[in-house]
Amino acid sequence: MKNDSLIMTCGRPLAQCLEEIEAFHGFKAPGMVLGLFMVHRAQELIGSGIEADVIVETRHCLPDAVQLFTPCTVGNGWLKILDWDKYALSLYDRHTREGCRVWFDLAKARAFPVLYQWFMRLAPKKSLPLEMLLEDVLAAGPAVLSERSIQVTDFYNRQKKDRINICPDCGEAFAAVQGERCLACQGKGYYRSRSQPS
Amino acid sequence: MKNDSLIMTCGRPLAQCLEEIEAFHGFKAPGMVLGLFMVHRAQELIGSGIEADVIVETRHCLPDAVQLFTPCTVGNGWLKILDWDKYALSLYDRHTREGCRVWFDLAKARAFPVLYQWFMRLAPKKSLPLEMLLEDVLAAGPAVLSERSIQVTDFYNRQKKDRINICPDCGEAFAAVQGERCLACQGKGYYRSRSQPS
Repeated sequence: MKNDSLIMTCGRPLAQCLEEIEAFHGFKAPGMVLGLFMVHRAQELIGSGIEADVIVETRHCLPDAVQLFTPCTVGNGWLKILDWDKYALSLYDRHTREGCRVWFDLAKARAFPVLYQWFMRLAPKKSLPLEMLLEDVLAAGPAVLSERSIQVTDFYNRQKKDRINICPDCGEAFAAVQGERCLACQGKGYYRSRSQPS
Repeated sequence: MKNDSLIMTCGRPLAQCLEEIEAFHGFKAPGMVLGLFMVHRAQELIGSGIEADVIVETRHCLPDAVQLFTPCTVGNGWLKILDWDKYALSLYDRHTREGCRVWFDLAKARAFPVLYQWFMRLAPKKSLPLEMLLEDVLAAGPAVLSERSIQVTDFYNRQKKDRINICPDCGEAFAAVQGERCLACQGKGYYRSRSQPS
């Protein structure tokens, strides 16, 4: 997989995808590039014209690949993140819940030692310079992925907005399930004030 | 706030920001536009040249505004999401943990009835067409926000990657804290197979 300008991923040239990754994620993270190939493969499998929601099984890197290369984001609710530290994602038809799961296949990845060592955190970061790592990821591409058709049986519900209340202390709206006061006014906030509100 | 091409938000023309919102989030969601003004205000307060991490207090819309208009994303770990349903965000210096919190101020928002009704979910969605709502959000802009300086006291730690194991059943890597097998192979997955892996 040498010529980035000829290879198309997620509907545009790979080179452009790599630039988008850098702009959004801060740098060409190997996990993001892997994620790009995963999203691309899942989109091929599910076909065009399907309104697909996504579940990712890690909060590292992969959610950003989904947000960049599909219409699904955290904020619009079409992407769900499971904090399982598995490098896998599922695209599925939001109506039939049929879809496909694509994952990073360790057995296949052994053929790419730099990538394997990085992924399994077997080598100190400094011994794996980004450029070397990226080269291995681009050489590997879809060759380190596996896939299967799935029926999604859980986590498919769109999360509805909860009922909100107005907190009698801070005057802000908050999820009513938290109680009479918001969590911050219950002393469970994450900040203390250094100024009065303005 | 009528001329979208003259107003600058987050370093670019408001009109361009609105286009970016539509491209990323799927449509010009009122919450995203509100979020744009919130990010803009927080950036003004914290000043340029500060490496800022972000905490948002809702998973609806606001995380996308942060991901679009700051370097912080879910996947790079610089954005943390608290599922509190409070329309607020904090930008803070990742070294000193000093920062600012900006929130949607209900008391100020009462002057913008359409926006207020939408936010408090007081009117059926159909009675508040998007265009009307957007007009009110753009008219309101920063006038419905409040702010204060804060010291972040919790949730500031970068979440380190956990130790991973290889699952003896599926052969995939997973967070070792889950036990001997990954959650999916413990029967807690979200899918059943419709094909063999390939």
